[in-house]
Amino acid sequence: MIPADHPRYRSLVTRERLAECVKKGIVAWEGLTAHGRGEAFDYMIGERTTSSALKAERTAAALLLTARRPVISVNGNTAALGAHEISALQKACGARVEVNLFHRTQARVIIIENLLRESGVDVFSGEAERLLPLSHDRAWCRREGMFTADVVLVPLEDGDRCEALVDMGKTVIAIDLNPLSRTARSATLTIVDELTRALPQITLACREISEPEKKSLISSVDNHYLLSEAIREMTDRLSHALD
Amino acid sequence: MIPADHPRYRSLVTRERLAECVKKGIVAWEGLTAHGRGEAFDYMIGERTTSSALKAERTAAALLLTARRPVISVNGNTAALGAHEISALQKACGARVEVNLFHRTQARVIIIENLLRESGVDVFSGEAERLLPLSHDRAWCRREGMFTADVVLVPLEDGDRCEALVDMGKTVIAIDLNPLSRTARSATLTIVDELTRALPQITLACREISEPEKKSLISSVDNHYLLSEAIREMTDRLSHALD
Repeated sequence: MIPADHPRYRSLVTRERLAECVKKGIVAWEGLTAHGRGEAFDYMIGERTTSSALKAERTAAALLLTARRPVISVNGNTAALGAHEISALQKACGARVEVNLFHRTQARVIIIENLLRESGVDVFSGEAERLLPLSHDRAWCRREGMFTADVVLVPLEDGDRCEALVDMGKTVIAIDLNPLSRTARSATLTIVDELTRALPQITLACREISEPEKKSLISSVDNHYLLSEAIREMTDRLSHALD
Repeated sequence: MIPADHPRYRSLVTRERLAECVKKGIVAWEGLTAHGRGEAFDYMIGERTTSSALKAERTAAALLLTARRPVISVNGNTAALGAHEISALQKACGARVEVNLFHRTQARVIIIENLLRESGVDVFSGEAERLLPLSHDRAWCRREGMFTADVVLVPLEDGDRCEALVDMGKTVIAIDLNPLSRTARSATLTIVDELTRALPQITLACREISEPEKKSLISSVDNHYLLSEAIREMTDRLSHALD
C-alpha cells in the first residue's frame, strides 16, 4: 500500500496499476518499458501540463469536434491508465473507440474491449482486417473504424503506424511525451503531455470551446511550434539541473 | 515477433529480451520501467557513445586496472543485457564479479549467477552478509567482494547503495544514462552511456591503454565535468532535433 502523502504517490500508483494490468493480460510486458520511457520525458517537462500542451489539447478538441468520422485508437497502456478518461472524451466528442494493439492477439483485444466497456466506453469492435500499409500485426484495423476515419486520436502510438495513417491522408493527433519520436514528428498534431492529464483537458475543451476558438485553432495548427516549445521546456529544465 | 525492418528493431528486441528475463525471474518487474527511463535518456544522447562518455570509459579502465581489489557488481538488468560483455571485461581487468540485487531473493541470486556462468563469467559467490550501512536487503554483499573492494563498478545502481559505497571510501564507477540521478551525481566517476555500448569500450581500453594515459586519466577525474558534458549533449540534441 503506497502512502497517499508519498512525494511520488501518483507515479507509484500508476506503476502498480500497470503491473496489475500486465498480470491480467491488458498491458504487454513491453508496455512497462514504454511507460518508463515516458516517465523520464514527463520528469523533464516538470510532470505538469505546459501551456503549449494545453494549446495542443484544445486544438485536438477542435479537430475531433469538426471531424466527420473521428476515431480514438486505444492500446493496452491507454486502456490500463485511461479507460474512464477515454469514456468521458467519447461522450464529449462522439468519436468511435477502436482497440488496436502493437502486440496483438485476439484474446488481448477482447480483454481490453471488456475493460473499456466496464468503464463506460461504447467500443467499436467490428471485424478487423489487414488494411494499413504495414507488415505484420500492425496492419490490422477495422474498415468502418480507423480505415475510413478522417481524424484519428492515437495516444501512445507506434511511429510506423502513425506515419502510415498520415500517409493515408488522415489528420492524426498523437499523445506522446517524447517530442523527438517518429510518432510525435509525423503526427498532424502532437500533445506532449501525460495521458491522464491530456485526455481530461481535451474533454474539457470539447465541452467549452467556442466556434471562433475552434476555427482559430484549426487554422493555425503548427506542430513544429508545439514540439519546439516542449523541447524548450525540457532543455531549460536540464540546463539548470546541476545548479 | 518483431519485424526486422522496424526502425527501432534493436530497442524492441532488447525490450523483448528483458520481458523474457522477467518471466525467468532474472529481471525484476521494476527493472522494465527502469530500463524504459534509461531508453529516454539514451535517445537524448543519440544512442551512441559520446566523446565525454568515451573519456569516462577509458578512465574506468584505468581505475579498474590500477585497483588492488576491483569488483563488478551485477544486478538483474545487467545480467540480462550484458552477461557476455561482463565476461569479456572480467577477463580484461581481472575484477571479481558479484551479484547484488535491489529486489533480492536467494532464488534470484542463484538464477543470475547461473546465467553469468553460462556466459563465461567467473562468479564470486561467497556467503553474503548485511555489511553495507543500509536498511533491508540493500545491505547485503560479500565480505571478500564488494565490502573490501577499493574500486567498484556498479552498472545501473540504486542511488542509496551508490552513496553508501562512496561514504565507505570506495572509488565507485557508475554506468547510468540519467545524468541527474542520485547514482550519477554521487559516484566517483559516471559513465553516461548505454550498458552494452559502455562495457565493450571499457574492455577495449583495458587492453590497449598505455601507462601514461592511465596516470593522466586517473589524476584528472572530474565527474561534474562529465555530467555537465552529458547534459550539454542532451540539450544540444534536443535543441537541434527539429532542424
